[in-house]
Amino acid sequence: MGKFENPDRIVIALGGNALGDTPEEQIARVREAAPTLLKVISLGNEIIITHGNGPQVGMIQNAFAAANEANPKIPKMDLPECGAMSQGYIGYHLQQAIGVAMHKAYKRWHVATLVTQIEVDPDDPSFQNPTKPIGAFMTKEQADAEQLEHPDWTIVEDSGRGYRRVVASPEPKKIVEAESILNLLDNEFIVIACGGGGVPVVRDYSDKGAYKGVAAVIDKDMAGELLAEDCQADMLVLLTAVDYVAINWGKPDQVDLDDISVEEARRYADAGQFGKGSMEPKVRAAIKFCESRPGRTAIIGSLEKAAEAIAGLSGTHIHS
Amino acid sequence: MGKFENPDRIVIALGGNALGDTPEEQIARVREAAPTLLKVISLGNEIIITHGNGPQVGMIQNAFAAANEANPKIPKMDLPECGAMSQGYIGYHLQQAIGVAMHKAYKRWHVATLVTQIEVDPDDPSFQNPTKPIGAFMTKEQADAEQLEHPDWTIVEDSGRGYRRVVASPEPKKIVEAESILNLLDNEFIVIACGGGGVPVVRDYSDKGAYKGVAAVIDKDMAGELLAEDCQADMLVLLTAVDYVAINWGKPDQVDLDDISVEEARRYADAGQFGKGSMEPKVRAAIKFCESRPGRTAIIGSLEKAAEAIAGLSGTHIHS
Repeated sequence: MGKFENPDRIVIALGGNALGDTPEEQIARVREAAPTLLKVISLGNEIIITHGNGPQVGMIQNAFAAANEANPKIPKMDLPECGAMSQGYIGYHLQQAIGVAMHKAYKRWHVATLVTQIEVDPDDPSFQNPTKPIGAFMTKEQADAEQLEHPDWTIVEDSGRGYRRVVASPEPKKIVEAESILNLLDNEFIVIACGGGGVPVVRDYSDKGAYKGVAAVIDKDMAGELLAEDCQADMLVLLTAVDYVAINWGKPDQVDLDDISVEEARRYADAGQFGKGSMEPKVRAAIKFCESRPGRTAIIGSLEKAAEAIAGLSGTHIHS
Repeated sequence: MGKFENPDRIVIALGGNALGDTPEEQIARVREAAPTLLKVISLGNEIIITHGNGPQVGMIQNAFAAANEANPKIPKMDLPECGAMSQGYIGYHLQQAIGVAMHKAYKRWHVATLVTQIEVDPDDPSFQNPTKPIGAFMTKEQADAEQLEHPDWTIVEDSGRGYRRVVASPEPKKIVEAESILNLLDNEFIVIACGGGGVPVVRDYSDKGAYKGVAAVIDKDMAGELLAEDCQADMLVLLTAVDYVAINWGKPDQVDLDDISVEEARRYADAGQFGKGSMEPKVRAAIKFCESRPGRTAIIGSLEKAAEAIAGLSGTHIHS
């Protein structure tokens, strides 16, 4: 049987930083990225796309905060709602870009963006120790005023640059819209889902069956890992700005890794070889996925070389 | 065969005004509306939900405009992107509310929001005569500055209250994501789509297969009509703030209409019986749907009495 009759299912996670800071930049960046994504399909695979939203959700939240300050009639917007907005904003441009790329590649598939919530555990330890900075820097006065208005917020001083709100980064537990994603996927759609790590929600036990948004940021690579497990994906591809994961990064003895086992990956991660807020979460997500079922592999590589990476010609391949 | 084996497919259009002006209001309003929507399903129907976004897209656009003025690093956001954001924002709360209502009604269906673009004709006559005001009021000075920055904008003086940008309200021609909607619908999903009349796009003939956003507002009832046709719906339900369409509205001889033919509806509309920007577009959308295929009916009624209206006990029923 040929590859096209038994396609690999691949979850591809794009970094939010790769999407630019303005609508114009975002349109240009996704236009550049889309042909690469199509190349992956042309190799005979099914793809599910997820993406970060750090700069975008920050932009939306800052816009509402600045607008509210100038005109109190414009409401402030909390993180879950900003996240949902960012899913619409990014998904819209991604859909357009993939549509063009499909047309040029004579592919008659469809592409759909699903607004996605991800359930987290309200008892996740990260809620006791929020570390993820969000929103704009504040002066001491602004920080005090915000703290008074929102007693539940955690605001910290950020290394002399001012004050910032920090939120938890809990582990994703369940994709609320998993059935919608699977349904479209089983019918040959390219699905864009779990944008920005999903809108984080917790069960609202005061109201049966209810979820409510929670101010938190789910790591988009961990969300991609859960998405890949839920979709029974064969491969998880985490795209970033570099072609390879490296050890001794930036030093004369830097070594790019092209093929490592989960044991090696874990050993390097435990030894602090990878950036805490950048490469390490990717490596941890890759390890989790590889260990979730025999035969699963993960790749960490660059967006530009995504198709080459999937063909085995670039990127760091991690396997169990 | 019972109704449940051959359900009616019903498109329900909610007004954006019914959704409130802040996230808190929106959560409360959709929570109130959801049990009514579930009642419609419990009567043995399939539903597709669409919604307006007037206040919400205005809020988002105004937020970015005010933020950009205070901090030029925050970009302005044009209408298509604001519309896509509003679809995420409203869809997220609608999904949550319908999820609770389903849980309480012991329904195990799923609900999904799709980011939806709708193609319009760049030669639509409305582009020559834009009339739909968007964004905040401006002073003469602000208006002149905006006009200089955006030579393609149309800015008009609005009856002594200041200056406002106006955009076209073109006819919707094609739902770009129609296949995604149908696919989920055929698998017993409650689908939320075409929010705010869809993100208006035109074909970009300079780039094969491409769509690009266009600053316009598609009437959400006309978008709902197209959605109902594309979904082969049996019924289009346009929900508003009143229980019935009336003639001689607000006068001593006001008559609420409970059952009218398309001929009667057209005659009243042509005679100017209905508000230009409010009830008339609903009646025109209802007429178009009824005439699109024999046996199709449309209802205009209130959100509160939606289930009663579908059961024939409230609302204005229009039929061919």
